[in-house]
Amino acid sequence: IRSQDQDVFRKLFLGWHENFQMQVIMQLYKHERMQLYDWLAANELAGVFQEMEYEDQFFTLKEMEAAQAAAVMNEVSADDAAAFIDKLPITARKESLLKAMDAKKADDVKEILSYPKETAGAIMTKEYLEIFSNQTIAEVMAFLRKTGQDVETIYYVYVVNEAGHLAGVVSLRDVIVHDNKTIIEEIMSTRVVYADDDLDQEDVAKIIQTYDLLAVPVVNKQKHLIGIVTVDDVMDVLEEEVTEDIGEISASKGSTDTNLSAFQAAKKRAPWIVLLMFLGLITANVIGRYEETLEAVVLLSVFIPLIMDSAGNTGTQSLAVVVRSLATGSYEKKGIAKMLRRELGTGFFMGLICAVVLVLTVSILYNHLLLAVIVAVSIFLTLSVAALIGAVLPLIINKLNIDPAVASGPFITTLNDIIGLFIYFTIATSFLEYL
Amino acid sequence: IRSQDQDVFRKLFLGWHENFQMQVIMQLYKHERMQLYDWLAANELAGVFQEMEYEDQFFTLKEMEAAQAAAVMNEVSADDAAAFIDKLPITARKESLLKAMDAKKADDVKEILSYPKETAGAIMTKEYLEIFSNQTIAEVMAFLRKTGQDVETIYYVYVVNEAGHLAGVVSLRDVIVHDNKTIIEEIMSTRVVYADDDLDQEDVAKIIQTYDLLAVPVVNKQKHLIGIVTVDDVMDVLEEEVTEDIGEISASKGSTDTNLSAFQAAKKRAPWIVLLMFLGLITANVIGRYEETLEAVVLLSVFIPLIMDSAGNTGTQSLAVVVRSLATGSYEKKGIAKMLRRELGTGFFMGLICAVVLVLTVSILYNHLLLAVIVAVSIFLTLSVAALIGAVLPLIINKLNIDPAVASGPFITTLNDIIGLFIYFTIATSFLEYL
Repeated sequence: IRSQDQDVFRKLFLGWHENFQMQVIMQLYKHERMQLYDWLAANELAGVFQEMEYEDQFFTLKEMEAAQAAAVMNEVSADDAAAFIDKLPITARKESLLKAMDAKKADDVKEILSYPKETAGAIMTKEYLEIFSNQTIAEVMAFLRKTGQDVETIYYVYVVNEAGHLAGVVSLRDVIVHDNKTIIEEIMSTRVVYADDDLDQEDVAKIIQTYDLLAVPVVNKQKHLIGIVTVDDVMDVLEEEVTEDIGEISASKGSTDTNLSAFQAAKKRAPWIVLLMFLGLITANVIGRYEETLEAVVLLSVFIPLIMDSAGNTGTQSLAVVVRSLATGSYEKKGIAKMLRRELGTGFFMGLICAVVLVLTVSILYNHLLLAVIVAVSIFLTLSVAALIGAVLPLIINKLNIDPAVASGPFITTLNDIIGLFIYFTIATSFLEYL
Repeated sequence: IRSQDQDVFRKLFLGWHENFQMQVIMQLYKHERMQLYDWLAANELAGVFQEMEYEDQFFTLKEMEAAQAAAVMNEVSADDAAAFIDKLPITARKESLLKAMDAKKADDVKEILSYPKETAGAIMTKEYLEIFSNQTIAEVMAFLRKTGQDVETIYYVYVVNEAGHLAGVVSLRDVIVHDNKTIIEEIMSTRVVYADDDLDQEDVAKIIQTYDLLAVPVVNKQKHLIGIVTVDDVMDVLEEEVTEDIGEISASKGSTDTNLSAFQAAKKRAPWIVLLMFLGLITANVIGRYEETLEAVVLLSVFIPLIMDSAGNTGTQSLAVVVRSLATGSYEKKGIAKMLRRELGTGFFMGLICAVVLVLTVSILYNHLLLAVIVAVSIFLTLSVAALIGAVLPLIINKLNIDPAVASGPFITTLNDIIGLFIYFTIATSFLEYL
């Protein structure tokens, strides 16, 4: 590959997709990379830079001279530049990098960084196309030819009025199929779907998904167009949100990063397990209260896992249903009350089915009808409650805007365990003399 | 809204996004909808049709006359038509609808339907643009102007050679910024990223995501271009796959559909719970074997939930990490062996931390050092094993291509429960005389 000939190399290298270029660069020796920084222009390096993960970006920039690093950053799109600078650990480094960059680009980056994380403003980019409604197709095409290579997408052109308000949108498709003399105003769509700058990134993703858009414009409080969010950024957002949701269900939040070492992963996950262990001690305490009952009939302890498993599993199912409904927005259509009634009903029916199965199985296996009935009735009551709790808790948490991790699967499971065992032992104790 | 004036209505209605048009239509009375079918052209109705969910599509077509229904279906893009026809319950209906459609469109739909579900071929669409490499930009622009309205995306134009093989791709951006006389061959990118027709839809999504594409071409065994998959379809695929993954972790597969009634949901979820209950009976059996130990020291039963919870939670964490790694493809980079070693290590460290915490807490709370040591050692061994099992099981299942639902969270939890309790009671029994 390294033929020492710049022209040959450039022709081959630039024919590749940036993502593949990035993979190749990451496998080079340092002196080869330094050569490559010389051979490529800032905008070409920027293309590769945008494909890298943060750690690689960091070391690449470090290898370059300060002037070249700034030149590359000028060519990186504002959203990627902001994401990178945001992650830099030292404030002084952030500032010196921003100072070395073009004033305009640095301002764009600062604007994006000024928004709270995970909002439309924080994930938008500033490289979009803006025209006036009285321009002709011919003018727009000339404009596109000139600026087309520098923007994130040329497939939507946004129309603003003199005040800078978002007034309409034309797709490049519309531009292409219409006559050169057509005025934009005649063909633009005035009902533009847009996102407010403080909208949650998940809702931005939903807009793009619902309307099958390639990009959505972002406006500020004064309805001025200030940026766009493109579909590829939204795909990354969706992936982030999914990882969050799964973290919630499994209490492994923040630890699905496979780059962590075993010890680092343990450090992230252990607090959850220890916390849950303390909740387990509460469960132990619940059982401890019924020590006399247990001493009288040791057989009762045999069904502790059964009660716990069933309660936990039912709650986790409900949780999964609700978390998915919240993510896809389908619960909004139905209303919360309806959803909860449904989960309670589901728990009721499942409890009924399990109770019938258990009465038969336990009375045969252990040859003890009363014990079977106690276990069955406990399961019936437990499942009804467990399904409801699994659904109600994440909804409450979501409404209260608390970090939903506290409503994660294991917490709901433990809560349901306690309730289930309480029901079980209360019933068992009251029938103790007949057992 | 219903001004009884076709022109006024059309001007207003067609100014809306199709998704909003769809929402409006769904709120009309039947006679209003019938009027609307008269007023709108087939391609306009097709635009709305594509936004609907299957049930609404079904009833809308049923309300139309057969000829109009076929006309609308001709205008619907091949992938959406195929998805709809695939869901029709009666084979005779499928065939009569296909027969009423244009021969070409019907063939396209049949081709898509001929692919196994969830492959690139099954989700691709046939409405793409194909040119030859010796055409000029001017010719391509003329071609785009003519056909631009009928295809899924005009933003990528695929270049084929005489044999129909995919030879290159030009983005509309490249077309726009180059001179009218430029020959396509000079500007096309020859290293086209493509998907084989039998590629899993999840991998198609990964390609689009990795290379930030708006669409990816699909080729058959002979490398002939046969269709494209667009980014909006891929977003839906990602959502489907996430729902599947969450279903796996929570054993609620197929029941996150919020349209189900409580009874229907119970019917879908109960089999899992009953199955898991039987596994719970196995756990009960494990405890039953140690009845003598339990009778001697009833206090031992108090820690059953603690052992179970910790084992279950640790396993679920590992499962979540692995499921996410499989979904995002990050485990392929690292290698399975490394990943498993990491999970074992994570379990080891977490077990160590929990053991230390437990020795202190239990010996203070219950004033019983030996019991505390037994519980702590059991937890240490259990967590080490549980983390490994949570990681290994889904990987094995994934390798064997079995339905991964059997490796779902609750199953791993139950397996870990059994192992944990076995370890606990074995240790406890061997120290029984000192307790």
